[in-house]
Amino acid sequence: MAQPQQSEGTEGETPPLRVGMVGYAFMGAAHSQGWRTVGRVFDLPRRPVLAAICGRDGAAVRAAADRHGWAAAETDWRALIERDDVDLVDICTPGDSHAEIALAALAAGKHVLCEKPLANTVEEAAAMTAAAEEACGRGQLAMVGFNYRRVPATALARRMVAEGRLGSLRHVRVTYLQDWLVDPEFPLTWRLRRELAGSGALGDLGAHIVDLAQHLAGERLTGVSALTETFVRERPLPGGPTSGPTSGPTGGLTAVSALGTGQVTVDDAALFTGRFASGALASFEATRYATGRKNALRIELNGERGSLAFDLERLNELSYHDGTEPGAHAGFRRILVTQPDHPYLEAWWPPGHGLGYEHTFVHQARDLIHAIAEGRRPEPSFADGLQVQRVLAAVEESAEKNSVYTPIAV
Amino acid sequence: MAQPQQSEGTEGETPPLRVGMVGYAFMGAAHSQGWRTVGRVFDLPRRPVLAAICGRDGAAVRAAADRHGWAAAETDWRALIERDDVDLVDICTPGDSHAEIALAALAAGKHVLCEKPLANTVEEAAAMTAAAEEACGRGQLAMVGFNYRRVPATALARRMVAEGRLGSLRHVRVTYLQDWLVDPEFPLTWRLRRELAGSGALGDLGAHIVDLAQHLAGERLTGVSALTETFVRERPLPGGPTSGPTSGPTGGLTAVSALGTGQVTVDDAALFTGRFASGALASFEATRYATGRKNALRIELNGERGSLAFDLERLNELSYHDGTEPGAHAGFRRILVTQPDHPYLEAWWPPGHGLGYEHTFVHQARDLIHAIAEGRRPEPSFADGLQVQRVLAAVEESAEKNSVYTPIAV
Amino acid sequence: MAQPQQSEGTEGETPPLRVGMVGYAFMGAAHSQGWRTVGRVFDLPRRPVLAAICGRDGAAVRAAADRHGWAAAETDWRALIERDDVDLVDICTPGDSHAEIALAALAAGKHVLCEKPLANTVEEAAAMTAAAEEACGRGQLAMVGFNYRRVPATALARRMVAEGRLGSLRHVRVTYLQDWLVDPEFPLTWRLRRELAGSGALGDLGAHIVDLAQHLAGERLTGVSALTETFVRERPLPGGPTSGPTSGPTGGLTAVSALGTGQVTVDDAALFTGRFASGALASFEATRYATGRKNALRIELNGERGSLAFDLERLNELSYHDGTEPGAHAGFRRILVTQPDHPYLEAWWPPGHGLGYEHTFVHQARDLIHAIAEGRRPEPSFADGLQVQRVLAAVEESAEKNSVYTPIAV
Amino acid sequence: MAQPQQSEGTEGETPPLRVGMVGYAFMGAAHSQGWRTVGRVFDLPRRPVLAAICGRDGAAVRAAADRHGWAAAETDWRALIERDDVDLVDICTPGDSHAEIALAALAAGKHVLCEKPLANTVEEAAAMTAAAEEACGRGQLAMVGFNYRRVPATALARRMVAEGRLGSLRHVRVTYLQDWLVDPEFPLTWRLRRELAGSGALGDLGAHIVDLAQHLAGERLTGVSALTETFVRERPLPGGPTSGPTSGPTGGLTAVSALGTGQVTVDDAALFTGRFASGALASFEATRYATGRKNALRIELNGERGSLAFDLERLNELSYHDGTEPGAHAGFRRILVTQPDHPYLEAWWPPGHGLGYEHTFVHQARDLIHAIAEGRRPEPSFADGLQVQRVLAAVEESAEKNSVYTPIAV
Repeated sequence: MAQPQQSEGTEGETPPLRVGMVGYAFMGAAHSQGWRTVGRVFDLPRRPVLAAICGRDGAAVRAAADRHGWAAAETDWRALIERDDVDLVDICTPGDSHAEIALAALAAGKHVLCEKPLANTVEEAAAMTAAAEEACGRGQLAMVGFNYRRVPATALARRMVAEGRLGSLRHVRVTYLQDWLVDPEFPLTWRLRRELAGSGALGDLGAHIVDLAQHLAGERLTGVSALTETFVRERPLPGGPTSGPTSGPTGGLTAVSALGTGQVTVDDAALFTGRFASGALASFEATRYATGRKNALRIELNGERGSLAFDLERLNELSYHDGTEPGAHAGFRRILVTQPDHPYLEAWWPPGHGLGYEHTFVHQARDLIHAIAEGRRPEPSFADGLQVQRVLAAVEESAEKNSVYTPIAV
Repeated sequence: MAQPQQSEGTEGETPPLRVGMVGYAFMGAAHSQGWRTVGRVFDLPRRPVLAAICGRDGAAVRAAADRHGWAAAETDWRALIERDDVDLVDICTPGDSHAEIALAALAAGKHVLCEKPLANTVEEAAAMTAAAEEACGRGQLAMVGFNYRRVPATALARRMVAEGRLGSLRHVRVTYLQDWLVDPEFPLTWRLRRELAGSGALGDLGAHIVDLAQHLAGERLTGVSALTETFVRERPLPGGPTSGPTSGPTGGLTAVSALGTGQVTVDDAALFTGRFASGALASFEATRYATGRKNALRIELNGERGSLAFDLERLNELSYHDGTEPGAHAGFRRILVTQPDHPYLEAWWPPGHGLGYEHTFVHQARDLIHAIAEGRRPEPSFADGLQVQRVLAAVEESAEKNSVYTPIAV
Repeated sequence: MAQPQQSEGTEGETPPLRVGMVGYAFMGAAHSQGWRTVGRVFDLPRRPVLAAICGRDGAAVRAAADRHGWAAAETDWRALIERDDVDLVDICTPGDSHAEIALAALAAGKHVLCEKPLANTVEEAAAMTAAAEEACGRGQLAMVGFNYRRVPATALARRMVAEGRLGSLRHVRVTYLQDWLVDPEFPLTWRLRRELAGSGALGDLGAHIVDLAQHLAGERLTGVSALTETFVRERPLPGGPTSGPTSGPTGGLTAVSALGTGQVTVDDAALFTGRFASGALASFEATRYATGRKNALRIELNGERGSLAFDLERLNELSYHDGTEPGAHAGFRRILVTQPDHPYLEAWWPPGHGLGYEHTFVHQARDLIHAIAEGRRPEPSFADGLQVQRVLAAVEESAEKNSVYTPIAV
Repeated sequence: MAQPQQSEGTEGETPPLRVGMVGYAFMGAAHSQGWRTVGRVFDLPRRPVLAAICGRDGAAVRAAADRHGWAAAETDWRALIERDDVDLVDICTPGDSHAEIALAALAAGKHVLCEKPLANTVEEAAAMTAAAEEACGRGQLAMVGFNYRRVPATALARRMVAEGRLGSLRHVRVTYLQDWLVDPEFPLTWRLRRELAGSGALGDLGAHIVDLAQHLAGERLTGVSALTETFVRERPLPGGPTSGPTSGPTGGLTAVSALGTGQVTVDDAALFTGRFASGALASFEATRYATGRKNALRIELNGERGSLAFDLERLNELSYHDGTEPGAHAGFRRILVTQPDHPYLEAWWPPGHGLGYEHTFVHQARDLIHAIAEGRRPEPSFADGLQVQRVLAAVEESAEKNSVYTPIAV
């Protein structure tokens, strides 16, 4: 694949932002798409360059570099971090390696984008946050990849909440429903092993919805009460590496080996309720056993003056009820979030021509590039990622302690 | 109003079932509609007769008798119970009087239909259940009015679960969302006073969803963890009696008097999670503060082989996902529950001609009449109502004890 | 229902309106429900009395009288019309007998309610209209039963159009989709025979949508271009009388006899486009072959300032787009038409507690009773029914003349 | 994306396909996205190279080349066609120049991809088709850009129809509703001038739905009856070039100049009915005046055994009713077309992670590259485009001739 990346004649005028990415599976493919597309759509103050990609398997990472358009390939992430032609390290590996890579990248003077969850433990996340804080003083910026803030519909929802359209918040209810573990013969991939994934549906899906709920509400949870469950405790060992419910980009499901079975050591589902600082009540559910629900991240916020609802399976839509309207004409309206005055949409297609999942990574790249060019701290920060981790830790603690209400550490 | 009630020439052949109803507000109007219509639509083994209605205000109850077609009016429920021309006592009063009336009616040899919640306390509900059990030995039957079991769509859902279409159950998530308390100037009606209503959203809405969830799942909850909240703790005193979010049947909202304000002594919202006997996880939310949601009783069940979803705001529809279908053609299907082979539909209109809320009371009357005629115990029984009460008590206990997981008493 | 303070005291004070109904199949059952219920819900100036019902089969009509609550039964419609205890004749027979019965009833001094379509031919409809006009001078009133004007959501739509919320109208698109003829073995019932039904989908479904479209638009069609088709031209003869896609009230489908097959002499589907007086464009489709669509009467109106959309399969909802709102927050909103300030809803249940199909007949009865009591001409008048008939005639003429644009006779 | 094991080794082994594109507005941006992305996602037998882009304004075309990643820029399309480093000419200009460019490109030995509509007249389209046919003998391939065949949901619909899941087809109803002309002050852009655009909603939107309907049905229309209308006949002249309802990639709406007003010489809306070869009935509506509908290309097909429905505003979904299922469990199901065994999805994201509008151009590029590599004629061919043009011509002829039914020329 010989597409010259970003070979603008104007490149001398727009300074480059040279990216080095660690990991090349599902998230690596998505991030590549983001970095490669962002400059074709948005006007940017820094021109992203796909400088180098890193993975342990040499042949595979070279193939991924060709496929996704990265100029160089590395097999040791330490080597990637040391490269002079890398300004920003983009971490797309499983959560167990986030802390080590991020700390090293910050120490090496790089900006960092780290996939969510920030880390597998609060301790790691705290260390990363401290390092990010220190690096910030040196002009290095760090962001955690909660990409669902960058769906135009959720960004519009945030804008509407910030405008006061909901008034005092009463309820936030959120689910993230998938169904790829319903089959008990689905193999024991890394996502089902605590030592690699940290947790199950909680860290994978729950992290997203905790971040999104707090972001949209504009406030933080103060405590939670939780139930978690592992429905299927033993699964066949996989014949090779695979990473989840993925198709295509990360390979099909690997055939189950004859290696026997192993223990599932993470949660299959997590339910928790909680309170926001304002007194609003929250309800969360993350599961991989909701038969027929493929990617149903659904959030609804009810305030004294209005309500908003979103479903990731219909990501170009936002549902809004204006409670100040006369009752006879009021109702939840379906806003097709494809108008030029909607967030990010000024750069895309005409009204009604929807975007897809991967565009969240284009928008994430755009926002991060602007923050770096302007020397502003990007959001969500590592501190935001740490706070989410604390919520998840409180969930696990409550679940272990008979669901007792557990305050979120500050 | 001079409509001869049920003046069939065939009445000699079909024995009557003479009903005496206590209460004539919202539920009284709805039950009247049920008793009056059921024999016009269904073939019945007993012919319901609207014998007498009872309320404390003589002029008002006589007007209600005229309006709703009751042959006689009483102002003392004890007198109603004593009437020889009453076979069944239908209790439509607020929860604080259920126990006294039901116990007396059973003692007087009547069948009893009692609106939900069965009582305001577990103790009352237990006494009623014991009395019903004893009366059953004498051929008297008792039923509690969880009418949402009688929506054709929920009845179809129950049938499909019983057929094994969901397989092992994993998740049940239920909400009952209304919004009639969003306005802090809404007055302090009886539904907001603990001494009359027992509890708030929990007993009113939560009782419905606990019963419906257990009924559809075909199994019972074993424990819960709960949060409850009263968002607005002081409200204007009403100028007169009113009973909730009602229009028409129970009068418009009464103008607020100059009497000042009073304390809200019930919950505005209740969130709880729980476990079913099978290990399935459950999530419940009942609230009167979900701006824009008028009557959103929503329930979804996810099983290993399929899923079902229902929304009372679209009560003629049931959503079903058959997880055993090839993935390429699978999806949640919207079953319009208006076919002749759907529950109750053999007696109604052609396909696609939907029913409404009040028809649940027609179906309730039908099922109860059949049970009485056949000497079978009707469902839901007082024992079922007691068990729901125990769940609600566990919810309140958990909410008071820092959300700790609380087993349901058996 | 009961607003006690509005109760009319004793029945002696409210004069009766004694109804005699001809026909007792699907429409007869629906009208019975309407007459029987209306006084239980609405405050009325005349008290409807179900005086007599008429049908040719003596045993069947007596059973229908018992079932539906009519005081007397007749087997000759002329006898019914002559009865002194009948003030209003309600015609629920197939279209071929409408003219004869209505003309006789008007001549006999009765008010008349006639099911749609008004007649099977323009000539009959014109004669009926002339007779109704003349009778009006004698204080007799006549109405045609386009009940879909009385769905609260369509009545709200009409109100909103009349308020100018759509501005200049550009488009009206309407379909009425059913699927009960998809099976080629469905028998040749009266609805498929031109001599009885007049036409097929066109007269049955098309009449509804032509009336509703013109009513909501507030203006009339000036011309049409049409295609009609009979997909299955020969069908098994039925073993006995049946009348369509009905279940319950009118009996299940009759078993097909061994009588052989017969010709379908009506259209299976009719498509037509047209222009309104204002220049707005219209599109219509009526069919009984839309697999999976049970009762999909869907109408959308697009105006310069807004749009409205309705689907009879979700009859408690109206979709509204306010085109004057800022684009960023605009969208089609789903109005749950169950608020007390929605048409007819002041007398029914609390918000979110939906109504059903049969309630259109309750509302029709209500509106007609008020018109009669006040001496006002009810709508839709026979003249309205005649005009719909002229549209249908123009559709048939256009379909016969190679779809050429055909003006509607005035 | 990358399935490493399927990687094609080094770039030297995959021969390039060098693309030269004419036009760089909305369609140019969309096609660029397609060419640039396709090799990053799919395994391809030819490697697309964005060789050169062409537009009349030198500065603007160079900026577009930079923005969209084209290696060279030309200001004369004849020069582009003559370039040795161009294998395929991609025509993204308004319809009036399609014929001239395509004929020249074919004469110059290039493959051709031409945006829809193929041409502004049947004569031009016929000449192009003849030239394409001749060129095919020389190994040059030509395709017309009906990209909506490449939405995964429509491709799935085509597969399901081809599998016989609908049985005999009865109805096809299609609308393409937009609303960008509702405001009478919207300027007179090229799309509203017959000499440039050929026609209005008919050629722009109608061409899409005619092609899609025939493609999904798997058969052709034999005749049509039509109404067209221009609601607003005079509009302000634009201050500069703009091309429609576009935002972002092609610039915002140009400010209206002080040049006065001009005549709209195309249709604003077109309605037509028709018959398919099998006897199925079809209904079409294309309009730019459907307030609140942004991009509502909706198609429903009803067959004897099932139905399918699609709405471009929810492009990741296909609705399917299986008419062979038992009625009690049947219903329209919402297939989320994001499973690995759905068309094109094997190469994208995990289930539930939706695609967007622009991905149709990625898929179009993929299919064309495969056809060229394999020497197969791609679909839709120029002959397909010509036939669509003949349908549109028949629509215009019918509209001019009082809607008379007009056969489609063969």
